[in-house]
Amino acid sequence: MRNIKLVLEYDGTNYNGFQVQEKTQLPTIQGVLEDKLSFLAKQRIRITGAGRTDAGVHAKGQVVNFRSQWNIPIEKVSLALNSILPKDIAVKTAEDVGEEFHARFDARGKSYRYRIYNNRIPSVFDTKYSWFIPYFVDLDKMIEGSKTLFGEHDFTSFRASGSVVKDSIRTIYNLDLKQKGPIIELTISGNGFLYNMVRIIAGTLVEVGRGKLTTGDVKRILEAKDRKEAGPTAPPHGLFLMDVFYD
Amino acid sequence: MRNIKLVLEYDGTNYNGFQVQEKTQLPTIQGVLEDKLSFLAKQRIRITGAGRTDAGVHAKGQVVNFRSQWNIPIEKVSLALNSILPKDIAVKTAEDVGEEFHARFDARGKSYRYRIYNNRIPSVFDTKYSWFIPYFVDLDKMIEGSKTLFGEHDFTSFRASGSVVKDSIRTIYNLDLKQKGPIIELTISGNGFLYNMVRIIAGTLVEVGRGKLTTGDVKRILEAKDRKEAGPTAPPHGLFLMDVFYD
Repeated sequence: MRNIKLVLEYDGTNYNGFQVQEKTQLPTIQGVLEDKLSFLAKQRIRITGAGRTDAGVHAKGQVVNFRSQWNIPIEKVSLALNSILPKDIAVKTAEDVGEEFHARFDARGKSYRYRIYNNRIPSVFDTKYSWFIPYFVDLDKMIEGSKTLFGEHDFTSFRASGSVVKDSIRTIYNLDLKQKGPIIELTISGNGFLYNMVRIIAGTLVEVGRGKLTTGDVKRILEAKDRKEAGPTAPPHGLFLMDVFYD
Repeated sequence: MRNIKLVLEYDGTNYNGFQVQEKTQLPTIQGVLEDKLSFLAKQRIRITGAGRTDAGVHAKGQVVNFRSQWNIPIEKVSLALNSILPKDIAVKTAEDVGEEFHARFDARGKSYRYRIYNNRIPSVFDTKYSWFIPYFVDLDKMIEGSKTLFGEHDFTSFRASGSVVKDSIRTIYNLDLKQKGPIIELTISGNGFLYNMVRIIAGTLVEVGRGKLTTGDVKRILEAKDRKEAGPTAPPHGLFLMDVFYD
């Protein structure tokens, strides 16, 4: 069996998230990609994604793999797929990998970016790709508040309530906040992320930036291990899965 | 009569250009803005734009003015309009100006930006805001070729054939080409632009960048005063009206 790894970019606006689900009105990224792959390869193909992304979340570097008998030359895979995929999904690279490679189990970490459009007037170009915040947020306070989150912690306070995964210990390698004109870019990398973790971190740091929480509150929230202590979940359309790391 | 000046941003994708026209299927920027203004001010309002933009062309700094008896406080104008305008049109600023101000006649110059997405794989996020060029273009050659265009010239070769405006002399103040990752940004300012002039300059410089024309050909094209000598008209969706200058 051949095993192919793809790196994908997609605009999540018109999709009900990455993963195939029963009974949804909108298509999913996985569903569309499997349909196009199966059509091209003339065999039923199932893909494995490095991770799910929620409805409305975008990706610049999602990774998937699939096993098949498809005998296409590897350098033609992305061209063939991009010619029939909708314009909001693109294959950036394709490579043959060892039979044992698994996009999810082998992932050693991920990086995400959360984009905030902080301006009095909304942007007509960034509406779908950022969280519009018309009030003042203090970037220095957000940076100060974010320092507590570096390293290994129990991130129970920063995951959606009702999550079933037992292990809530994760390590954040880096968390960077940058202002680029009206855009505030939060880039975060770690060995793994709990459900909604990046969006709750973004929502909490915005509360710090606008003065509803103090920088010291972030430590208190982390130690409380209680979702109710953290800030709101930032909306999905500001979030981008940027990269998945492998050994 | 009160005279108000607005600076607008719009995504031109879903519009048949700026100017109101008879019998078009898509709305126009002017048409939508006049409808919303007339509704808010409870009187028929006509606007004057600094210049037309074609179907699909975007703006980050289009300027319009309109005369009315509308007695709204000036600081509320953009908020009121933005609350009812569609998401792809936004008012950035509004100010009261002298009765004699005319957005078109008083304009002393304009700047435009043309965006090229130069990559083997198309971008899912930049499709609507850039010209996708998958083949190699040499930025240094484009820069070299652009030098001929600085200053005052007869730009007949760089305007749509069939134009009726007699005076084809224009002055280019600055023409800047920058690479930002896969994006090539051409920013151009001048005292005025002929019909399709920026798009024909972009199309011609791309021909230079890919080696179909030499840097010396740009001078020859300019001197020929013949539209047929220049390169193709670059597509509208890469073009942004950035700024309109007034005394």
